[in-house]
Amino acid sequence: MSAPAGTFLMNSWYMAAWDHELIDGKLTARTILEEPVLLYKGDSGKVVALDNRCCHRGAKLSNGRLEGDDVRCMYHGLKFNAAGKCIQIPGQDNIPPKLGVRSFPVVERQHIVWIWMGDPAKADASLILDIGYLESPAWRGVPDYLHYDANYLLIVDNLSDFAHLAFVHTKTLGGSEEYAFKSKPLAIERLDDGFRVERWHMDADIPPFHKKVVRNLKKVDRRNIGRMHVPGIFFLESLFAPAGNGVEKGNREGAKEYRNCQFFTPETRRSTHFFWNYLHDYNLEDPTIGLSLHDSMVQGFMEDKSIIEQQQQTLDADPEFKMNGIASDAPLAHFRRTLKKFIDEEQANGQVRHLSALQAS
Amino acid sequence: MSAPAGTFLMNSWYMAAWDHELIDGKLTARTILEEPVLLYKGDSGKVVALDNRCCHRGAKLSNGRLEGDDVRCMYHGLKFNAAGKCIQIPGQDNIPPKLGVRSFPVVERQHIVWIWMGDPAKADASLILDIGYLESPAWRGVPDYLHYDANYLLIVDNLSDFAHLAFVHTKTLGGSEEYAFKSKPLAIERLDDGFRVERWHMDADIPPFHKKVVRNLKKVDRRNIGRMHVPGIFFLESLFAPAGNGVEKGNREGAKEYRNCQFFTPETRRSTHFFWNYLHDYNLEDPTIGLSLHDSMVQGFMEDKSIIEQQQQTLDADPEFKMNGIASDAPLAHFRRTLKKFIDEEQANGQVRHLSALQAS
Amino acid sequence: MSAPAGTFLMNSWYMAAWDHELIDGKLTARTILEEPVLLYKGDSGKVVALDNRCCHRGAKLSNGRLEGDDVRCMYHGLKFNAAGKCIQIPGQDNIPPKLGVRSFPVVERQHIVWIWMGDPAKADASLILDIGYLESPAWRGVPDYLHYDANYLLIVDNLSDFAHLAFVHTKTLGGSEEYAFKSKPLAIERLDDGFRVERWHMDADIPPFHKKVVRNLKKVDRRNIGRMHVPGIFFLESLFAPAGNGVEKGNREGAKEYRNCQFFTPETRRSTHFFWNYLHDYNLEDPTIGLSLHDSMVQGFMEDKSIIEQQQQTLDADPEFKMNGIASDAPLAHFRRTLKKFIDEEQANGQVRHLSALQAS
Repeated sequence: MSAPAGTFLMNSWYMAAWDHELIDGKLTARTILEEPVLLYKGDSGKVVALDNRCCHRGAKLSNGRLEGDDVRCMYHGLKFNAAGKCIQIPGQDNIPPKLGVRSFPVVERQHIVWIWMGDPAKADASLILDIGYLESPAWRGVPDYLHYDANYLLIVDNLSDFAHLAFVHTKTLGGSEEYAFKSKPLAIERLDDGFRVERWHMDADIPPFHKKVVRNLKKVDRRNIGRMHVPGIFFLESLFAPAGNGVEKGNREGAKEYRNCQFFTPETRRSTHFFWNYLHDYNLEDPTIGLSLHDSMVQGFMEDKSIIEQQQQTLDADPEFKMNGIASDAPLAHFRRTLKKFIDEEQANGQVRHLSALQAS
Repeated sequence: MSAPAGTFLMNSWYMAAWDHELIDGKLTARTILEEPVLLYKGDSGKVVALDNRCCHRGAKLSNGRLEGDDVRCMYHGLKFNAAGKCIQIPGQDNIPPKLGVRSFPVVERQHIVWIWMGDPAKADASLILDIGYLESPAWRGVPDYLHYDANYLLIVDNLSDFAHLAFVHTKTLGGSEEYAFKSKPLAIERLDDGFRVERWHMDADIPPFHKKVVRNLKKVDRRNIGRMHVPGIFFLESLFAPAGNGVEKGNREGAKEYRNCQFFTPETRRSTHFFWNYLHDYNLEDPTIGLSLHDSMVQGFMEDKSIIEQQQQTLDADPEFKMNGIASDAPLAHFRRTLKKFIDEEQANGQVRHLSALQAS
Repeated sequence: MSAPAGTFLMNSWYMAAWDHELIDGKLTARTILEEPVLLYKGDSGKVVALDNRCCHRGAKLSNGRLEGDDVRCMYHGLKFNAAGKCIQIPGQDNIPPKLGVRSFPVVERQHIVWIWMGDPAKADASLILDIGYLESPAWRGVPDYLHYDANYLLIVDNLSDFAHLAFVHTKTLGGSEEYAFKSKPLAIERLDDGFRVERWHMDADIPPFHKKVVRNLKKVDRRNIGRMHVPGIFFLESLFAPAGNGVEKGNREGAKEYRNCQFFTPETRRSTHFFWNYLHDYNLEDPTIGLSLHDSMVQGFMEDKSIIEQQQQTLDADPEFKMNGIASDAPLAHFRRTLKKFIDEEQANGQVRHLSALQAS
């Protein structure tokens, strides 16, 4: 392994891919926690994750050939099964029984391929977050992927303070700078594996992404609930209701809701796989709504990406640079402390804290 | 600070920008001595230089927004005044009194923005070189900028020996290889903060850049006086007179003069901001002369730049590479010794040698 | 020298260039064993190799000017003769007798320019391999060059096992995957300075590169003999005969032969100059055969290059990556041991093993 011990939380499920990325048996190379991984779905439908380096001379198995559920290296023809065991060497009769490449536990669930990079004995599928809306007929969205040239924690930071909506995303996801000044988070709820934060903005202008798909609205009461979980998974529930209808007291008439899930999987210490979906619960028969929301999100994410990648450059240029906390940093500070505790624990005793399965609304 | 102590002379005025670069309140990012600096001219006309990294999360202030003489970070909306003090945090009532970013002393004079990267208490504006011709109606030129992928001292070296005119710039600034063989520098004058060198070339061919703008000339007597000052500022006074007129005895009839100032401000140890202007004292009503001279200089500088950047590559590839001195290296050797003495002094006792103000012709 | 002692075998002849690369006095810059080298053919026809860095300020001599058999640096005009001695400094009468740049022993023979990067006293031209077919009227080919972003030993590895023909070059140089399963190398012959390996494939499909230039063939008996020599020189003799004619018993009727020489000269630890020629012994009056073979080889080499450069990336990303040997690795393992022995010997006592001159068929 390239990354020094303690760099990443190892005993945890990370999102490795959307299921649709692996259709047609495509051999997909993806570096995860600085390990080169080969991902594919075999002919039987089984999802496989192997070290992408042939154990013979290091050629990339992702340039090889799928054969059933097995993969053949197309340098000298060694063949590996789904467990990573070498099962054929052309021109050689005896194969050393231990010859092979490392395989990683993987689980395909709710359109997500999850991978476990740590101790395989601890890979308990019951720890995987349940995200029901990803497979529910009551929700519709377009799953996608972005690559960041930045450490994943800088993306976590970004999502820990909605105030940035006002300045970074004024014309896309935010709506007005007022959001930063007039709305404040309710109490931050500290979770064992992250945090939950809720923010209301009453009688607010409609943010552009919502305005594009919902006509004839005037002012809205807006509620955002964000949750961030170790190792780097973010859920956002957004609700828009006609202003003054009393949505804060439970009146959902005319309300429209969104669910957003985001997954930050470290590629390296300074780059990140960013998976996301943004789903809506209304007018499901109209595909243009999901596509419009998708495009609005991409536009907003590109605004974040520019800032975050420049932060990474700043840190690269001067690792001594000291950040200063402000009041609204409480969530991100709690998250970093929590993640560090998890990592320290698994480093200290080789054990990993078993989280109870979490429900993502 | 990124660069190790002693890398650069800190207590000295460096050119940071031409004044015209900051018009319209443009937020300009420029790394100087390996520090990321934000430069701008506020609405009041005041020039400001701040650490370009927001003290909160390191976002670039140059992507922020000018508000009067202040700047707002467009990540979470923190606002900083011209002294670098944080004066607003959206959604937070109390601002820690010491929260802010570093500000740098700056002086705008004679179209140049000067910056002081060292101890602010020692930033004495009377130390700034006076370059009167930059604001004199008797001279005309086009100020400009080039970026070098090379240490600034390699550029200083280049200008310390006019012999290179003969070989590098034969067809642009030089005129003939004869210049290297037949002209020799008069004595090098060692200055406390650099050197002065004078070189005559009698009955010489007219160099192409001069020929383009002055018709019907035959041979010329040519005099170059160069001066190099710490930390990296070069002045060249050139005079061309009809050959044999006795210009060396004081007859200025038919003589035409040029003034050239060049400023080498380290961006990093291996890259340089190169500011320059090349002015003439005749036919001032004709703008095409200045433009032609500008283009000739750029052509010549590109010849230098190619060689100098390759030198940097050579040194990068093998830091052990040893240069060998020749006779004409006396000026550059003196300059490097002088600069080292200045740096050693400020390192030794935290004091900086106060130069008396220098007159640039 | 940049590379640490023991990185490369120093006391050995390396191919530096094809002779045609130096026609017209072209000043050619080429880094060899991490040393920047200038190569040129002087007006007298003499081939010269010098340190490409002017001893004065490190400017590249390859940007200088050829003057007879000498070269002039076009920065300050220093002139060097073919032995590297500085013979002129414009404007300076006395030249220090030891001033100059390093020169390297070179020999031009059989269209190859050989260079000796180690102790010049040991540069014995009788050690140079004789490759008669390169100048024989019985053979025709098109010499060429490729640059690899990979350590040269990864290319040596590639050529040490013909099994890769079956998988990497199925549609170009190989012909079928059967080659890997049905043909096996005869005994590997261990040489003092490398190895020899022979492989027969009877009643085989015709590989595409051969099929393109030879019509109306059905099945062939195919023989490959490969030899690899220190420091990284490969010879391949290929023979194709109509299947069942008894070529293995000496019947050469209808047989067609090829000679392939390949030279791997380290540019750096992670890049290689790859020189090669592929010659045929039939229909010599038809230039399209050589050109077609040339193109087929380039196509095949690009297949190798892709795999090999990715291997280099794998090793760069994780220097701890361990390769595992298989049976067919015997030749490459022997070669690496042999090369290491040569390097260790010259490191231990400053002596180099004098090989007897080798004949390349």
